[in-house]
Amino acid sequence: MKEKCAKESTTVMNELVLPNDTNTFGNLMGGRLLYWMDICSAMAAQKHCNSPVVTVSVDNVSFKRSIRLGEVVTIEAKVTRAFNTSIEVRMEVFAQNLPLGTKEKSNEAYYTFVAVDEHAKPQPIPKVVPETELEHRLYDEAMRRRELRLILSGKLDPSKATELKNLVNLFDHKG
Amino acid sequence: MKEKCAKESTTVMNELVLPNDTNTFGNLMGGRLLYWMDICSAMAAQKHCNSPVVTVSVDNVSFKRSIRLGEVVTIEAKVTRAFNTSIEVRMEVFAQNLPLGTKEKSNEAYYTFVAVDEHAKPQPIPKVVPETELEHRLYDEAMRRRELRLILSGKLDPSKATELKNLVNLFDHKG
Amino acid sequence: MKEKCAKESTTVMNELVLPNDTNTFGNLMGGRLLYWMDICSAMAAQKHCNSPVVTVSVDNVSFKRSIRLGEVVTIEAKVTRAFNTSIEVRMEVFAQNLPLGTKEKSNEAYYTFVAVDEHAKPQPIPKVVPETELEHRLYDEAMRRRELRLILSGKLDPSKATELKNLVNLFDHKG
Amino acid sequence: MKEKCAKESTTVMNELVLPNDTNTFGNLMGGRLLYWMDICSAMAAQKHCNSPVVTVSVDNVSFKRSIRLGEVVTIEAKVTRAFNTSIEVRMEVFAQNLPLGTKEKSNEAYYTFVAVDEHAKPQPIPKVVPETELEHRLYDEAMRRRELRLILSGKLDPSKATELKNLVNLFDHKG
Amino acid sequence: MKEKCAKESTTVMNELVLPNDTNTFGNLMGGRLLYWMDICSAMAAQKHCNSPVVTVSVDNVSFKRSIRLGEVVTIEAKVTRAFNTSIEVRMEVFAQNLPLGTKEKSNEAYYTFVAVDEHAKPQPIPKVVPETELEHRLYDEAMRRRELRLILSGKLDPSKATELKNLVNLFDHKG
Amino acid sequence: MKEKCAKESTTVMNELVLPNDTNTFGNLMGGRLLYWMDICSAMAAQKHCNSPVVTVSVDNVSFKRSIRLGEVVTIEAKVTRAFNTSIEVRMEVFAQNLPLGTKEKSNEAYYTFVAVDEHAKPQPIPKVVPETELEHRLYDEAMRRRELRLILSGKLDPSKATELKNLVNLFDHKG
Repeated sequence: MKEKCAKESTTVMNELVLPNDTNTFGNLMGGRLLYWMDICSAMAAQKHCNSPVVTVSVDNVSFKRSIRLGEVVTIEAKVTRAFNTSIEVRMEVFAQNLPLGTKEKSNEAYYTFVAVDEHAKPQPIPKVVPETELEHRLYDEAMRRRELRLILSGKLDPSKATELKNLVNLFDHKG
Repeated sequence: MKEKCAKESTTVMNELVLPNDTNTFGNLMGGRLLYWMDICSAMAAQKHCNSPVVTVSVDNVSFKRSIRLGEVVTIEAKVTRAFNTSIEVRMEVFAQNLPLGTKEKSNEAYYTFVAVDEHAKPQPIPKVVPETELEHRLYDEAMRRRELRLILSGKLDPSKATELKNLVNLFDHKG
Repeated sequence: MKEKCAKESTTVMNELVLPNDTNTFGNLMGGRLLYWMDICSAMAAQKHCNSPVVTVSVDNVSFKRSIRLGEVVTIEAKVTRAFNTSIEVRMEVFAQNLPLGTKEKSNEAYYTFVAVDEHAKPQPIPKVVPETELEHRLYDEAMRRRELRLILSGKLDPSKATELKNLVNLFDHKG
Repeated sequence: MKEKCAKESTTVMNELVLPNDTNTFGNLMGGRLLYWMDICSAMAAQKHCNSPVVTVSVDNVSFKRSIRLGEVVTIEAKVTRAFNTSIEVRMEVFAQNLPLGTKEKSNEAYYTFVAVDEHAKPQPIPKVVPETELEHRLYDEAMRRRELRLILSGKLDPSKATELKNLVNLFDHKG
Repeated sequence: MKEKCAKESTTVMNELVLPNDTNTFGNLMGGRLLYWMDICSAMAAQKHCNSPVVTVSVDNVSFKRSIRLGEVVTIEAKVTRAFNTSIEVRMEVFAQNLPLGTKEKSNEAYYTFVAVDEHAKPQPIPKVVPETELEHRLYDEAMRRRELRLILSGKLDPSKATELKNLVNLFDHKG
Repeated sequence: MKEKCAKESTTVMNELVLPNDTNTFGNLMGGRLLYWMDICSAMAAQKHCNSPVVTVSVDNVSFKRSIRLGEVVTIEAKVTRAFNTSIEVRMEVFAQNLPLGTKEKSNEAYYTFVAVDEHAKPQPIPKVVPETELEHRLYDEAMRRRELRLILSGKLDPSKATELKNLVNLFDHKG
């Protein structure tokens, strides 16, 4: 199974915010954005795995900026690291007001997928090769995010976490 | 501002899984479920706050069971604890196969909202009064989930977390 | 085939009224409500029958109150009485303005379903056991609603209606 | 206010049955059809009234034939009679399998609307002039359908129904 | 294979412009109209071919008038001429403001389809018999539109176009 | 008004083909693709114009390859040339089967937009600066496509077309 570079999985999605995507203030509903992010990150995961994928978890997502009706949501997704049959995808989300020419970051997020065959059985996943400095850091941190994910879903005893020693080393850099 | 019991905010949503909600395996896409959960928890938050609300964050969500085309997704939402202008809502998600009469838990999740007035300005929120043993435990743990949320979004220095001393006390019970 | 209590079939649906659900006045379109009511009552019927169901008729529905964009439609459905292969479901529909904390009844309705097997062949349905006073009254009236339904669809000669003698006894109580 | 012929309001709607319109058997869900019928009859009512309209009631609808994924639903709507501020629209619904060249009647229905001005206040409606024999019969029967509607919604005491003397004269002809 | 008259394929579609169909000015988006036109013309083509059809091309479409939220789009489709396994459908599109009683032409368009069997293999198509003067003219011009289509898609060398000698005879009449 | 390079407007859209986007063969409907293309090209036009835009025409589109349920449609849009108040956008459309790792070109298309201000009045548009050889060729050909567009919509007498002398020079290169 051939290793693949992180950047090969890059997937960009641009979505126009339509009336049904908004709340009564004319702002994009958080749930609609989570839906688009799921589709975008699944595409990046499929590109890397060359197989169908199934969403298994979503890490903590904070929405920092409201996005308006008529703005464009740009989602940029790229895989960070593969484990045996699961893979983590990182996304950056931007809100663009095209008439004004503005592009502001809305949030980041990590979704995790399992690669499956046509009978929905988990499949091995090619290793991710990080190249840039950021890709290397995201690759290294991925193990700690994974431990936190397993602890939060009750699958790992915190005392068994070998990478995530304490809260201080949750991340090398701030989000 | 009058305090309100947690259970007054209880909101149940039942959604039938239709073809467009599914992936090529005929399973509910994770993003569609995140969308429904956003609407359901926003309703619970609005009931408690008696004001419009805006989604500010979603905690780690793990999907433990695939949900099939034609099954019914049942989401049960209830507020756990209010902070100054934000409120945490907990959901339990079930998949029901009505012809077979089965109902299985799919996952839990915590969404956080800010209450706003008609100009989208944050508003104070009535306190939540926990009554049952579970409501009391969720109320107490809410402070630690909040600290983790703030750490993960880069708004709190881990060394300043007063409640969440270490990973071992992340939760009193397993999720 | 085991009898089942009416209340076991209780199904609650909460839907947020979004822009595409509304007419140019910002009010929920009647047809969208009829669509949600079909899904909600079909869920209640499936719970009782433990089999897929197919809608066969909708009784007269009157809309008494307009429902606004941003309000929540709450539909509460419960079976009333089973016939051989068909079953009647009663719904109460409410409009909730969550910020204002109001909940007003919009309308009632009766939908009828046939239970089918995986080849879409009609199936016998467990008897409904009414428990409360209201459930008993709805159970008794169901026979007259059924006769009216059959007369209106040209399947029963009015002179052969044994329960529905005249218009005066259409209902024991006003809808 | 000028009278208008019934046929001037004729409105035809053709809708292709897509996956999301169907249940797990691949048949059109009743609720989706009720939604399309609402839009089609509202168009016919608006053509006659030359004002926006609001749905106020739906008469008993019986579904006689299942409609398949990929078939075309054809709805033909025409006003039958105007009352002061309300108007009744009759629809015939057909299922067409275009590759096979078949067209079968699925059902009939009557929806009632109120004409409103831009402030949603009820408006007077031009009289309907029936021309064909069928239009005349539908015009005459409209008064009895209206009385039944008012009785069923609890707005008319059955003993005060002057047109609808008994169940036998509900309709001159079978539906 | 029996010839069929053009008018037998006539298909009318009426669609109400809802919020999600509009841009931030409240005008129908061009893409939504192109979507409805595809469905309407496919129905006309299926009626003529008595087989499923697949869209193969869309001729130049010019939008001459903006269509507003709440207006009704009326599309009238009819086949013009069949080639071996493909068929051309012409549509006229109108915008109706039903409260005002106005109906204005928005645009015309030609979509081309291939008839296929259940394995998606191209099928022979019955000849179209034009009857009215307009149908005859559209039938004659169809050959030139077809040559232009083939030239524009790189399938025909302009020097080999036998019908479409030069730009002057693109159309006998102005569109 | 500052000139802008063509490449600054580049916009990529990736859409997953869901059940409701497909016909009964499980292939993407042409109309759905035309809808996505409209949104994608409008985004590219808005980026260049820094103002809202309205679709005014779609050039001939030929669909060369069917796109399957579960595949990803990738649309790449870039402006080619601005006229006074209108601008042409070119798109290339690809179908990707991510599990198989294939990416095949489906079709090309040109959509034209008018830039408008907040009152929907046409606005002047910055000039497009072509840089690559392809951008230069598309820029030069744009005048001929525009003349053909005007001829086909009846706005230009073919004898007055100064650029598009005859069919042979419709395009320098084959589509």
